[in-house]
Amino acid sequence: MASEFDLIKRYFSRPAPSAVLGVGDDCALVQARPGMTLAMTTDMLLEGTHFRAGTDARRLGHKSLAVNLSDLAAMGADPRWALLSLALPRADESWLDAFAGGFYGLAGRCGVDLIGGDTTRGPLAISVTLIGEVPAGLALRRDGAQAGDDIWISGATGEAALGLAHLSGRIDIVEPFRSGCIERLEAPEPRVDLGGRLRGLANSAIDVSDGLLADLGHILEQSGAGADVWVEQIPRPPGMVACADQALALECVTSGGDDYELLFTAPPHARGDLAVVSADLGLALTRIGSIVAGEPVAVLRDAGGNSIPVPRPGFDHFR
Amino acid sequence: MASEFDLIKRYFSRPAPSAVLGVGDDCALVQARPGMTLAMTTDMLLEGTHFRAGTDARRLGHKSLAVNLSDLAAMGADPRWALLSLALPRADESWLDAFAGGFYGLAGRCGVDLIGGDTTRGPLAISVTLIGEVPAGLALRRDGAQAGDDIWISGATGEAALGLAHLSGRIDIVEPFRSGCIERLEAPEPRVDLGGRLRGLANSAIDVSDGLLADLGHILEQSGAGADVWVEQIPRPPGMVACADQALALECVTSGGDDYELLFTAPPHARGDLAVVSADLGLALTRIGSIVAGEPVAVLRDAGGNSIPVPRPGFDHFR
Repeated sequence: MASEFDLIKRYFSRPAPSAVLGVGDDCALVQARPGMTLAMTTDMLLEGTHFRAGTDARRLGHKSLAVNLSDLAAMGADPRWALLSLALPRADESWLDAFAGGFYGLAGRCGVDLIGGDTTRGPLAISVTLIGEVPAGLALRRDGAQAGDDIWISGATGEAALGLAHLSGRIDIVEPFRSGCIERLEAPEPRVDLGGRLRGLANSAIDVSDGLLADLGHILEQSGAGADVWVEQIPRPPGMVACADQALALECVTSGGDDYELLFTAPPHARGDLAVVSADLGLALTRIGSIVAGEPVAVLRDAGGNSIPVPRPGFDHFR
Repeated sequence: MASEFDLIKRYFSRPAPSAVLGVGDDCALVQARPGMTLAMTTDMLLEGTHFRAGTDARRLGHKSLAVNLSDLAAMGADPRWALLSLALPRADESWLDAFAGGFYGLAGRCGVDLIGGDTTRGPLAISVTLIGEVPAGLALRRDGAQAGDDIWISGATGEAALGLAHLSGRIDIVEPFRSGCIERLEAPEPRVDLGGRLRGLANSAIDVSDGLLADLGHILEQSGAGADVWVEQIPRPPGMVACADQALALECVTSGGDDYELLFTAPPHARGDLAVVSADLGLALTRIGSIVAGEPVAVLRDAGGNSIPVPRPGFDHFR
């Protein structure tokens, strides 16, 4: 059987040109560019909790980096360096080859170098730490929303939750929508380019991992403001039409997790610039509500302006 | 039951004065000091692989940070910021309180701020990423050993492996040595101050996590040099006298893992400065051999200079 050191050498030691020193010493060494603040995030993915046993290794490699890229995007930071800790039940080389392929594939597209990590034996667990740079003072924080800001969402939410509901047998989604929803769940596309473009335009931002309304709630709590959200304005994803239970589908849109869209707030005078960003990136940006003064609560409103009940809150690992 | 967000708020949200932004946003934000290179390391500890079920939570909190502090020390870097990912089978508040106490206790002594992380449900797993700073060009790398360098070890190795051998019933160590060995295994003291003092003195360094000879092997491979090690010069730890099987005890000293001493090489003209460092820190530094030109192999020699067999190599998770 290949040793721990062989495995690291074979699968996780590609050159890291942006580092002073990459994989293979006690620490990796990197140099931040002058004037840059470092943004750091970490996420752990566990079999049985964050992904189903038997999930495609290439998609896992992709997703384990994607969820961290999404956090950096939500901060307006440009990704630079990743560290990967991997616990594996056994040294399965075809699994490792596919996982590394998914990881490095996304890393290469996003300008990330893998600079270090840890490989060990245990129940399948993946922990990625990602470090990026953002010009000092320009990070997009959760606490910056201002009364009067528009509330925006990129792309559309809900497909990841629809995919999970399909895989767990709660609903049946027909092809080709089924594959789209499952790909969204297993291999989400982080909004890296959008995050960088929002610097100087958005007042606050978060990525939608717990659910659109739950993550909006985090912005409201930290900004000390409320929100009106127009339910009819929330974009519906393509996969939603394939779902017989439209109430459940809407719940996935407003409250499903794992979509990794960016939810952000910006003053109304930024609308023109945001239209340019949307066109440049080929990515829909939709205005779904407004920040208002008051208690940190999101009120969901129908087309007539009437308050309607909010579907179940987002995902919490310990509830 | 407390929610994920409550747990993070209650146990892992102490102020992080050295950060621009600590726990609670998509990313943490930090600012490196001018002229500093960043050193980054990550380690994952799993129940059943790295520690026994039922290990004291306070010691686990301490150790999960200590192993990373040791990597930074081996690089000559000053620790600054930590990220913690924690998978827990359940939200056990007394366990969390003790774990956080052990983690923050060591962090406070070493100038580390916890700036972010992730809490999730799953089999007990702890992943810590630690970031430090080292003046540009002064990092202690594994590839810097030069023929003629002295080989040094801090403190003494072997007690962690003796503690593990006792706990697993292979040997019996009497008190008070038993407690010392088990404490060494479960709550090692990283050589943080020594790492900083070795900048400009040592040519190469590594921390002893896999075993003294195995870790020396990493220096030799990366430096392209060999070594003569005088077995009689290798310091014996206090706990060794309490072990009836002296051959096994010596194997623990030369090849046992988890000691987190620093193994380093330095030119002979640094001996005087190293004596001062040793006295200042109250920490033994012992010269155990020399780097020699040739194949990257450590030859163990007895007092007469004769080559003797090398005990089993260090720990490898996948062998």
